[in-house]
Amino acid sequence: MEEYLSERIDKLRKKLCEKNIKGFLIFKDENIFYLTGFYSKDSGSILTVTDKEIYLLVHFIYYEQAKKTVSISNLNIIQFIADRTKELASIFENFSYKIIAAEGNNTSYENFTKISKAIKKQGKKLKNLSGIVEELRTVKNESEILKIQNCCSITDKAVQKFLEMDIAKLKNYTEIELSHYIENEMVKMNSTGRSFDFVVANDASSSLPHYDASHKKIDGGVLLIDVGCKYENYCSDITRTVFLDENGYLKKNGSSSINPKNIIKMKEIYDIVLQAQLKAMESCKAGIASKELDGIARNYIEQKGYGKNFGHGLGHGIGLEVHETPKISFSDDTVLEENMVITIEPGIYLEGIGGVRIEDMVIVKKNGCINLYRSPKLFTVIN
Amino acid sequence: MEEYLSERIDKLRKKLCEKNIKGFLIFKDENIFYLTGFYSKDSGSILTVTDKEIYLLVHFIYYEQAKKTVSISNLNIIQFIADRTKELASIFENFSYKIIAAEGNNTSYENFTKISKAIKKQGKKLKNLSGIVEELRTVKNESEILKIQNCCSITDKAVQKFLEMDIAKLKNYTEIELSHYIENEMVKMNSTGRSFDFVVANDASSSLPHYDASHKKIDGGVLLIDVGCKYENYCSDITRTVFLDENGYLKKNGSSSINPKNIIKMKEIYDIVLQAQLKAMESCKAGIASKELDGIARNYIEQKGYGKNFGHGLGHGIGLEVHETPKISFSDDTVLEENMVITIEPGIYLEGIGGVRIEDMVIVKKNGCINLYRSPKLFTVIN
Repeated sequence: MEEYLSERIDKLRKKLCEKNIKGFLIFKDENIFYLTGFYSKDSGSILTVTDKEIYLLVHFIYYEQAKKTVSISNLNIIQFIADRTKELASIFENFSYKIIAAEGNNTSYENFTKISKAIKKQGKKLKNLSGIVEELRTVKNESEILKIQNCCSITDKAVQKFLEMDIAKLKNYTEIELSHYIENEMVKMNSTGRSFDFVVANDASSSLPHYDASHKKIDGGVLLIDVGCKYENYCSDITRTVFLDENGYLKKNGSSSINPKNIIKMKEIYDIVLQAQLKAMESCKAGIASKELDGIARNYIEQKGYGKNFGHGLGHGIGLEVHETPKISFSDDTVLEENMVITIEPGIYLEGIGGVRIEDMVIVKKNGCINLYRSPKLFTVIN
Repeated sequence: MEEYLSERIDKLRKKLCEKNIKGFLIFKDENIFYLTGFYSKDSGSILTVTDKEIYLLVHFIYYEQAKKTVSISNLNIIQFIADRTKELASIFENFSYKIIAAEGNNTSYENFTKISKAIKKQGKKLKNLSGIVEELRTVKNESEILKIQNCCSITDKAVQKFLEMDIAKLKNYTEIELSHYIENEMVKMNSTGRSFDFVVANDASSSLPHYDASHKKIDGGVLLIDVGCKYENYCSDITRTVFLDENGYLKKNGSSSINPKNIIKMKEIYDIVLQAQLKAMESCKAGIASKELDGIARNYIEQKGYGKNFGHGLGHGIGLEVHETPKISFSDDTVLEENMVITIEPGIYLEGIGGVRIEDMVIVKKNGCINLYRSPKLFTVIN
């Protein structure tokens, strides 16, 4: 562990040095974990990296945990109870440089201003320097990839458990119960739990890309699940859309509780989304720009007449956070590098009818990408 | 619904008017829900309340949901795909006042600065105004209290399910599995799921106040559970600490896998925490200052020699968020008002041995407070 961490701190210091920064404040819990091994969600901790020292400022309630989990030498753990800004300022009392940089994207305006005022008394200035640790995190090392692979393998198996259910079993669940069933399967396989609040959206609700699972019993129609778990602090994310055909409409062309026109429409958009997703998967490799990759799926969906119904980016980086740098989007210039891990997830959403999204996670490689999932994505009808 | 919302908007406008503010930007999802009925976690939405208009700026993926759930008239929903700052600035193009205020506590320094620059082009200035909606939210109305009561009743029943287990059953679970068992019980009773990541801490781990449940099998010793759920967007929070006495040490005074000295110590601190908690519960009523209430429990624990081992505040407000204004803390001057809902949760943590915390949620009333839980809190030994 410690070896990676020292390497990361060195890389960070190199980047800071290039910008002539000798003191840097890090607020994001995942960034602190990435550099020290200490992780606690919403802990209010601050990591200070200067050209010579490293200080981790933690609240009383995280002190024992910090002592146990920090895996880097030469790090000073400082405990605070009430006023962390005061403790922070005291670190810089004998610091000879006049500029201190801070993650302005990861702390509130109010907190940034508060720290700014506190160090102003020492004749120092706080400067915004955002995204520098997030950028380091985009390319994963071997150990991270192994954890992500395990995380995705758990997720894959849980999704397959879901895909093996028949409609009679599914109809026993509400959306929320199905969501918890899938999470429990992940926990049984050594995940620590969900990496975000699952989308389990049945029927017309599937047209809301971030729909929360409800207490509605699952019934015929579209069923979109967007799920993922955590494994050793790393996240997974996958979406599958299936069709529940209670009365065998699709098979027998008979009567159904689902509007037949809607089924035909959904089948049409499913095929478009799948083709768009496969085209993007084929083009994904080191050297392609994020916006270019997004464009491959987007142009195809636009050609088919559904451009306006695909109103989100193609995907996102994933690792310690379920959404992290880079965005895979028409407005992002990042050039993909080997061992970045991203999602590819086009979707088409028809208000009042339903939506389709298909999402995989891939490791970017020199000549292509590796899909981290095996869950089938052909048009699936569950009877 | 709408009646409450209009009332809240009126109260907000009155407060803004007192500060001579004619335009105000709200970023926190719970604040937006409180004022409009639209809720989506981490949605990046911005609510703009001017002296005459209300605008809700939402990303494409939340647009349909916003249209469905906004329960207030005269609200303009504006959809953005890439650049919300640009859309936001356009709202203010014909706005005749020069100062716009924004929740500087609920948005990043970077975002605040970005908006600031965008409206500077229009000759306008962005000013930080923090905590104003959070303050409105501290006193709950009848409908909110009903939801919170239901939420706590579900939680109570789930905790009682846990307390009814015997040691043989508990030993089948890992900490994480027990955590998910409790959450599932909550979901069965119509909760939408956990309101935070549960603490399920067995043995010495209980000395870490924010310990994450692990894959460790539950065994003898202390078992601290800090759990809560969501019901109609409102949160609950409860902590109980029990003792698992596998070999009947406490009963028979025989051999045990637990260090007997530790059990005696834990029993000692349990009684102190319980007395501190009961004293605070007795003193909790409208008119008492937060710091005074904190002091009642803290002084007692200090007198008993464990002041240094109670390094967090006594409690916190709770409602749409599991932690909200006011803090119940030695550094907080808030005077409690009728129908505030808060937690009361003193604790003592002994590194390497274990910790005890006992937490209830109460509604503050004129002459006292109403405990929202019935789960027993006498020293409980599970055999």
